[in-house]
Amino acid sequence: VSAEPADAGELLYAEDLPVGRRFEVGSRTLSAEEIKAFAREWDPLPFHVDEEAAAAGPFGGLAASGAHILAVYVRMTSDALVSRLAILGGRGVSELKFLQPVRPDVALTGTSTISRNESTRPGSALIHIRGELVDEGGEPVMLMTGEMLVRSRG
Amino acid sequence: VSAEPADAGELLYAEDLPVGRRFEVGSRTLSAEEIKAFAREWDPLPFHVDEEAAAAGPFGGLAASGAHILAVYVRMTSDALVSRLAILGGRGVSELKFLQPVRPDVALTGTSTISRNESTRPGSALIHIRGELVDEGGEPVMLMTGEMLVRSRG
Repeated sequence: VSAEPADAGELLYAEDLPVGRRFEVGSRTLSAEEIKAFAREWDPLPFHVDEEAAAAGPFGGLAASGAHILAVYVRMTSDALVSRLAILGGRGVSELKFLQPVRPDVALTGTSTISRNESTRPGSALIHIRGELVDEGGEPVMLMTGEMLVRSRG
Repeated sequence: VSAEPADAGELLYAEDLPVGRRFEVGSRTLSAEEIKAFAREWDPLPFHVDEEAAAAGPFGGLAASGAHILAVYVRMTSDALVSRLAILGGRGVSELKFLQPVRPDVALTGTSTISRNESTRPGSALIHIRGELVDEGGEPVMLMTGEMLVRSRG
């Protein structure tokens, strides 16, 4: 299934979210300054905030905090998909993997794919959304599965 | 096992992280302004950025973004525990649950507990850290399990 562009449209209910439906959610590049600024606030480890320490550290250079990588994807999918859903609430994340260090100045591109759609009680469904960020070579850097409750029409 | 205060100390290797070892990682209260400012940047959904829309929304009031709640815990455990580890890198999160909406002006208190410690190759171990944030009544608002590789002495 090829990804559809995430254009604005009508509110999406559970019935509009068949397993396999896939959304392009955008691209973003983090500068070294952005990586360090986020990490100073939320994850001030040497390899996220200091380029010299990072060069000598486990990643061999500056790498974004996992919390930052997740936030980048959340912003993309919030704008392009979740804001269009008849959402009742988020439940959490059942999987989140950081597959490669995220370096400065690499464009990250996101997709969100419906991976499960299960009626819970009348009027709502549990929707799983598989999120992926890939680098410029198409290699995944982050995979996650988010769970949310979405209203159904029926 | 009662939690130990997270005081600065020597670098912690895999051998220092038996299953069940538990660390107090701090407390933090988010104001309505902080909740809205984070969400404007990373998760601009109406119930995270606008108090009137939030009152009419699924949470019946302003609630912090899940990305924000995670970042609050990451900051606590980064300062109190991860900065002390002989870390080789994070691998991801195998579970992340948001159990209750996080409202403004509620103190969140964190703990980090070693839940798995498994040698991988010589010199390193896969460590699982179970993170919890509880509210002022001791009710959990977030649970997560983070996975990281930590050097061993042996």
